Amino acid sequence: MAAAVDFWFDFASTYSYPAAHRVRALAAQAKVAVNFRPFLLGPIFKAQGWNTSPFNLYPAKGRNMWRDLERLCADLAVPFRRPEPFPQNSLLAARVALVGLASATQTRSWGDDFCVEVFRTEFGRGGQIGDETGIVAILARLNVAPEPVLAAARSDAVKAQLRAQTEEALRLGLFGAPSFTTTDGELFWGNDRLDQALRWAVKAL
Amino acid sequence: MAAAVDFWFDFASTYSYPAAHRVRALAAQAKVAVNFRPFLLGPIFKAQGWNTSPFNLYPAKGRNMWRDLERLCADLAVPFRRPEPFPQNSLLAARVALVGLASATQTRSWGDDFCVEVFRTEFGRGGQIGDETGIVAILARLNVAPEPVLAAARSDAVKAQLRAQTEEALRLGLFGAPSFTTTDGELFWGNDRLDQALRWAVKAL
Repeated sequence: MAAAVDFWFDFASTYSYPAAHRVRALAAQAKVAVNFRPFLLGPIFKAQGWNTSPFNLYPAKGRNMWRDLERLCADLAVPFRRPEPFPQNSLLAARVALVGLASATQTRSWGDDFCVEVFRTEFGRGGQIGDETGIVAILARLNVAPEPVLAAARSDAVKAQLRAQTEEALRLGLFGAPSFTTTDGELFWGNDRLDQALRWAVKAL
Repeated sequence: MAAAVDFWFDFASTYSYPAAHRVRALAAQAKVAVNFRPFLLGPIFKAQGWNTSPFNLYPAKGRNMWRDLERLCADLAVPFRRPEPFPQNSLLAARVALVGLASATQTRSWGDDFCVEVFRTEFGRGGQIGDETGIVAILARLNVAPEPVLAAARSDAVKAQLRAQTEEALRLGLFGAPSFTTTDGELFWGNDRLDQALRWAVKAL
């Protein structure tokens, strides 16, 4: 059995951007397999009594988050631009990601690339990822024909899969994103815990 | 002018424990002066609509914080034991700390040592720091005569000083602890940002 980490994220989550940017290279270096697990924070925030991002509900926290993210991206030498509105609607992107991630067993996998490219569009260029136009443009950049993907993303099967993924996140105790879980049941919350999660996954073998 | 960082903390704050444990050695290594700035999170949480720690208000977040802190302390090889009740009342400790920190200009300074020892007692041994008995025991371990210190801690001047310190924290945009501020107005939130804050302080010179 190889070491593995589940990487949980919502496409609207700000700190999931640096995590998505870093996770594949760091995991490869640590010889840990990464499973991309998009889910929806909305139902999880609702369970905590929030109807939007806590960064909007608590302005001082929000102001610091944007500045912190700017500093983090500068340290990583990745572009940063704040999207408007925030948060973006992440529902369609998450469903499309599930279609792409399921394609991993086929000849050509574009799931992980799609996820990274969504974050780059949204927080690197301040682009729109909440509507079909934005998603089609991202698929085009990856040379993926959009029509069959969008049709699959709107199927009842994929809708149910995203609901199940979000319910699993709740069951695992997730309350924010990004989060990392290991096969022995540890939960690590936040971009700042990526390295520790990878070390744990290796140790847990 | 030397590089300097203000280290803001509340004695009830869990992540201020590893920060207090690490800050002096890391700052000395980076050649950055550290000003210990105890304040009260209570009024700041109240401004966000919370009547206790968010770790108590949001159970999933709280469960992860205790586990995360346990893992962090194991990595740092410092003892960890969860205090009951949580949060501890930090008012008296903060006032006593101000008395000790003011003693820095005198022949013998015990302010920083007191702060570190309060955190060690509370989160390293799960001890009580909310009442006079706990504080007297800590002062005794530092060979500081408790009576004049407690009298000073209860003076109107020290009470006003702690209120002013908390108001300054709010003005600087603090919303949690630990936080680090630099002379050029940057705010870094969390134990995870200590190293970055020190680097920034050096760069800002």
